[in-house]
Amino acid sequence: MSSSSEEISREITTPTLLLDKERCLANIRRMNEKAIAAGIKLRPHCKTHVSLAIAKWMQQETGIQQITVSSLSMAHYFSSAIHDITVAFPVNIREVDTINRMVSDGKLQLNLLVENVEAVEYLQRHLQGQVGLFIKIDVGYGRTGIPSQDFERVDRVLQCILTDSTLTNFKGFLTHAGHSYDCRTADEIRSVHLSSVELLSELQQYFRRKYPILQFEISIGDTPTCSVVTADELRNSGNLIHEMRPGNFVFYDIEQVTIGSCSYQDVAVAMACPIVARHQERRELVLYGGGVHFSKDRLYEMDGNGKEKPIFGRAVRFVRGSPLKWGAVIPGMHLRSCSHEHGIVVVPSEEDFGAYQVGDLLRILPVHSCMTADAMKSKGYLTCDGERISRMTDYEVSNHPNHGYL
Amino acid sequence: MSSSSEEISREITTPTLLLDKERCLANIRRMNEKAIAAGIKLRPHCKTHVSLAIAKWMQQETGIQQITVSSLSMAHYFSSAIHDITVAFPVNIREVDTINRMVSDGKLQLNLLVENVEAVEYLQRHLQGQVGLFIKIDVGYGRTGIPSQDFERVDRVLQCILTDSTLTNFKGFLTHAGHSYDCRTADEIRSVHLSSVELLSELQQYFRRKYPILQFEISIGDTPTCSVVTADELRNSGNLIHEMRPGNFVFYDIEQVTIGSCSYQDVAVAMACPIVARHQERRELVLYGGGVHFSKDRLYEMDGNGKEKPIFGRAVRFVRGSPLKWGAVIPGMHLRSCSHEHGIVVVPSEEDFGAYQVGDLLRILPVHSCMTADAMKSKGYLTCDGERISRMTDYEVSNHPNHGYL
Repeated sequence: MSSSSEEISREITTPTLLLDKERCLANIRRMNEKAIAAGIKLRPHCKTHVSLAIAKWMQQETGIQQITVSSLSMAHYFSSAIHDITVAFPVNIREVDTINRMVSDGKLQLNLLVENVEAVEYLQRHLQGQVGLFIKIDVGYGRTGIPSQDFERVDRVLQCILTDSTLTNFKGFLTHAGHSYDCRTADEIRSVHLSSVELLSELQQYFRRKYPILQFEISIGDTPTCSVVTADELRNSGNLIHEMRPGNFVFYDIEQVTIGSCSYQDVAVAMACPIVARHQERRELVLYGGGVHFSKDRLYEMDGNGKEKPIFGRAVRFVRGSPLKWGAVIPGMHLRSCSHEHGIVVVPSEEDFGAYQVGDLLRILPVHSCMTADAMKSKGYLTCDGERISRMTDYEVSNHPNHGYL
Repeated sequence: MSSSSEEISREITTPTLLLDKERCLANIRRMNEKAIAAGIKLRPHCKTHVSLAIAKWMQQETGIQQITVSSLSMAHYFSSAIHDITVAFPVNIREVDTINRMVSDGKLQLNLLVENVEAVEYLQRHLQGQVGLFIKIDVGYGRTGIPSQDFERVDRVLQCILTDSTLTNFKGFLTHAGHSYDCRTADEIRSVHLSSVELLSELQQYFRRKYPILQFEISIGDTPTCSVVTADELRNSGNLIHEMRPGNFVFYDIEQVTIGSCSYQDVAVAMACPIVARHQERRELVLYGGGVHFSKDRLYEMDGNGKEKPIFGRAVRFVRGSPLKWGAVIPGMHLRSCSHEHGIVVVPSEEDFGAYQVGDLLRILPVHSCMTADAMKSKGYLTCDGERISRMTDYEVSNHPNHGYL
């Protein structure tokens, strides 16, 4: 295995996203065990990997039959293997024809998000098949969704759904506590979770009282909360939560390490980048690996002078004999800037600088694995065993049911 | 035309990058006229559009037969139409087999960048066909290249090239004054240009003295300089500059407006995004259009409290009767955040807020058109006449001469 992985590593000529399958499977198993222990359904978000192969690993490891995605083209892509899919994005009524093509034969349980009467009424007028509807609730993130305490606005949307539920089946309330991404400790994440639970619990009580015979689920899902809150804590939330939809956890990334969701040892992807230049006088390496590979997502860290500096990735050690794996983070060695194809790496130690030559590969943990995997397009992933794992391709996108592809 | 563009606009269901062909052609013509007036060769950088169709517009408008790209896969993609291509990125020696496949039949003039002896020696040992070599010079940007005043280091690389020039033809010195992107006025850009010219002039004098019979070119190229410096100023640079390689100018973007390279009326691309939610209480619109469409490149602007706030795009007015065009920037209406698929738009005026409903399209000028066009992948562009303009596809990438595609 090791000699073959060395051969494959020699064949890496352009930026390539390495995937540590063992870490990825361990991340999947850990989340699944927590969901089982908490008595909650796991509906993993697949926008991070957008890979049928990885969705199938998930199925094999956990038996799950339901996923989350963020677009109809992803839903279509995964629907060959999975038949219960929630599109966790406010329904885009301009795509109603695409929705109709996907649900016309009744084989796909497609769940959509609504948060205004206009979208519900539009769906009721134009739908030609059954869909599930979740009302999107904002528990404090402030991105989208109806503020959880605005019962009246939630009720308007709910009443509209119930007015004509021939094709729209009310499923429940869905929220994404994305403000957990601002946390930097497990306690902060826990406190975001507890405040979400309190808000959702008030919502649940109000609507149970108002509609006593109505069945509805409560769906939560953000990787920091789902990673940090224990199964006991989830179960103790008064049987409130029915399902969780973490996504990023399959790969994690250095942002999640910074938040406190995971450790560097859990990060399952690293970009292998050819070194194209060395600048001894400022101890910097130039990588073939820039914004079109990593995306331009960044973290900020304080430099020695109390000024914020952006970080676009962190270098990790080479593992002798296993060139498709990677070792520990190299202290202070990070991607300080990304332009189109260039990445500039600061190397604090002279010894580390001396270890890398023009033509070598340097492995970099991404800031945000969802965006990095997307930027890599259909090139997909290369596992530590040299297996190529494909991602949804442009071809598959352009062949999704919206034939016009506008 | 207007009724058909309205029909096409109704077919836009997902984020779509509109391209104003007239503005794009005007940008191309203006740059070409400047190059002609200055007596300088124009070698446009095609990494912004990565579209054979747009390269052909360039050929039709200007007759140019030479381009710049930033990767070998782009070089391969364009080589069906253009046979003189500079890859403006430090040569990645791990791709030498790909280079060999591209130059083996002698039909493509492929120019590469070098900045260290290791890469030159590696090429000399492994090349199987002719290439041109530029030495990459740093005139103060500090990204990569040999600092222009380090004549000794430049000379080491040059001597190495001249030692065995069977397959490596020394072409000259190439620089990218990317620090022009930090400028905010035409005078600042001019001063970056003048300091580059001074440094390149010293370099030229030194190497003309040392190698009196050596012919070499000087190539510059950054959109701010090429846009702002006049043809007279370029010509007056002591016949120093042989070619210029601007790229972003074909589309421009709001970053270039901020720098001072162009006006909003020159920006030739805008993303049409479906509105999926409205938040009256905070006067914000939620768009289908996020980081995977715009990229996460951003500008910073001071808010009312003297704090920096990021901007990911600016909204422009709808043009009645011409839905595939767009009008002026709407004061203060900007994309304040981008997550995976969500874009959040701040709408300062109640009147503007009232003008947009769920299901409408909102048009947004991108911060950085190169990154946005890349994030849109092979979906490419839709012109104001409803013509679809394709971009290099994954299929073309995966079929480029590096068959292994690692």
